[in-house]
Amino acid sequence: MKKHNFSAGPCVLPQEVFQKASQALLNFNNMDLSIIEISHRDKNFIAVMDKAQNLALELLGLKDKGYTALFLQGGASMQFLMTAYNLLEKKAIYADTGTWSSKAIKEAKMFGEVDVIASSKDQNYNYIPKGYTIPSDADYFHCTSNNTIFGTQYKEFPEGSIPVVCDMSSDIFSRQLDFSKFDLIYAGAQKNMGPAGATLVIIKEDILGKVTRSIPSMLSYKVHAEKESMFNTPPVFAVYVSMLTLDWLQNLGGIAAIEKINNQKAALLYAEIDRNPLFTGFAAKEDRSTMNATFNLVDDSHKEVFDNLWKEAGINGLNGHRSVGGYRASMYNGLTLESVEVLVDTMKKFENTL
Amino acid sequence: MKKHNFSAGPCVLPQEVFQKASQALLNFNNMDLSIIEISHRDKNFIAVMDKAQNLALELLGLKDKGYTALFLQGGASMQFLMTAYNLLEKKAIYADTGTWSSKAIKEAKMFGEVDVIASSKDQNYNYIPKGYTIPSDADYFHCTSNNTIFGTQYKEFPEGSIPVVCDMSSDIFSRQLDFSKFDLIYAGAQKNMGPAGATLVIIKEDILGKVTRSIPSMLSYKVHAEKESMFNTPPVFAVYVSMLTLDWLQNLGGIAAIEKINNQKAALLYAEIDRNPLFTGFAAKEDRSTMNATFNLVDDSHKEVFDNLWKEAGINGLNGHRSVGGYRASMYNGLTLESVEVLVDTMKKFENTL
Repeated sequence: MKKHNFSAGPCVLPQEVFQKASQALLNFNNMDLSIIEISHRDKNFIAVMDKAQNLALELLGLKDKGYTALFLQGGASMQFLMTAYNLLEKKAIYADTGTWSSKAIKEAKMFGEVDVIASSKDQNYNYIPKGYTIPSDADYFHCTSNNTIFGTQYKEFPEGSIPVVCDMSSDIFSRQLDFSKFDLIYAGAQKNMGPAGATLVIIKEDILGKVTRSIPSMLSYKVHAEKESMFNTPPVFAVYVSMLTLDWLQNLGGIAAIEKINNQKAALLYAEIDRNPLFTGFAAKEDRSTMNATFNLVDDSHKEVFDNLWKEAGINGLNGHRSVGGYRASMYNGLTLESVEVLVDTMKKFENTL
Repeated sequence: MKKHNFSAGPCVLPQEVFQKASQALLNFNNMDLSIIEISHRDKNFIAVMDKAQNLALELLGLKDKGYTALFLQGGASMQFLMTAYNLLEKKAIYADTGTWSSKAIKEAKMFGEVDVIASSKDQNYNYIPKGYTIPSDADYFHCTSNNTIFGTQYKEFPEGSIPVVCDMSSDIFSRQLDFSKFDLIYAGAQKNMGPAGATLVIIKEDILGKVTRSIPSMLSYKVHAEKESMFNTPPVFAVYVSMLTLDWLQNLGGIAAIEKINNQKAALLYAEIDRNPLFTGFAAKEDRSTMNATFNLVDDSHKEVFDNLWKEAGINGLNGHRSVGGYRASMYNGLTLESVEVLVDTMKKFENTL
């Protein structure tokens, strides 16, 4: 039975990516070797790494604009400290829009002064704070474009004159933005790009080399950039699958094409959440994420009935995070419109069952 | 055509591991989901992580002896700095036996005084220094059990009273040792364990928490130990494949069983290197690695002839590292005796051809 996988991450990828990855585990590029047994210095893998880096820059419209794309390890959690290690000399400005922002703030505080300019913690992060000005006397401004746990997403980003660092782990490659407004973008692969184990970091080269502290090699963006992500053995398989997914996206028509589908999926689900009297949305309407829809039952006593229904329908990964409870439907690039239709039908069936 | 893969890492794994991993990419544990699309908090993956950690400790004979097994990211290179970050308060003692030791020393120097007590750099690292005493007035002693590039391996380890940290990236699980003599063992997965992208760290718990500096969460062994390798999203696929490989090893009879095969493979190849007048071994005989055999042509003008012969025989990854030149045959656990026989036959054929 085909599953409809709404998991928040690691998450569904295009089916053709699973097929190709499975095949490459047995025989990669007709080498009669598995993708995971070849040297990372083999020209066949170097081509994969080059293609993945190029596709990332091309899809974001950042090719030949002074940016480097790196594939590193450690997830966004490692970037929480690497951004500060590499960029924070005196003071940085952070917006606190959820669990991951808070963790980024905690790590940054070890390296300098952190000014939390805005927070939505007062309402359990169910909205994106707005209407503030980013001061110009800081090293950078850090924000989290999409808050996986709470289901909120920046629709517009605050303007300022200092470098902007953005954690786009859960919505990169999902919607068109002027990515050149960002100086450093990072994203764990395991949402819109690939398996857990690779982290994409896009850096405007001219922001590097400005802090005075010495930086361990593995934590230095400069070292990784100079070695084109091959300072040490990269996570070969995770980079390969990321390349496959980015290639799939480009063949589909790039971010413009997937954005239309993502908007369709989100519109369909949010319409049902708003229509169906048994559900209530969690996030403020104007800040709703197209990637993660968070919603609760109006009456929790119906939980078992609904849970049985969606499990019977082949739906996976719908339970909400403990910070919010209820349900979370993650609709990343790899999730089809059909899967959202199945979920919406199940929500209607639930209404009719009661 | 079946390849004989002597690649230095990433490298060959047991064929059944490739088969199972390929299948799990399409349908893991009959969940009708790919191993890379399920949540790392799913009980099916938690079972994989638990099993991998348990197998690692059991195979090394360290179960219930106060050790924790962690699966982290960033390879041995990240451990070069993490060991120092977590353990180096004032001074550490390092033995310099090759490129990777040197890199570990470089990173450690950022965190305290480093005393390089022994080095084989004077002879391009073709031997393991011996006959020194480890001082007792230091935080730890660091060594590299097997030197992949140069083909040398400790047969006995120096004794001392301070904690011993060992980079076993390229020979862990290959031979029996009293592993309880080590306080921290680390190893990138991509030799005897799995794909690139996971790093095994075995820590004796009582050595933690002794430095006064504050440690970023992602670099703290204590944080990872408390969260049982799930502080952040682990490299799911790399951990899964590592578990499969460790399971294969246990079913084979554990380290005692594989050590016999590894000794057979190494004996066969070194005998041919020593017998065949066209080749000369690089490493000092008493320090020869059972994992990586380094050897050169006596007359480099025959290079093309030999290279064509081994390529025709389906051999892959035999070129030596640029620091040594010539050839390097890596014979990790996943490489069969048959593959070594093919290589030895090819060396004999080469002799007969000229």
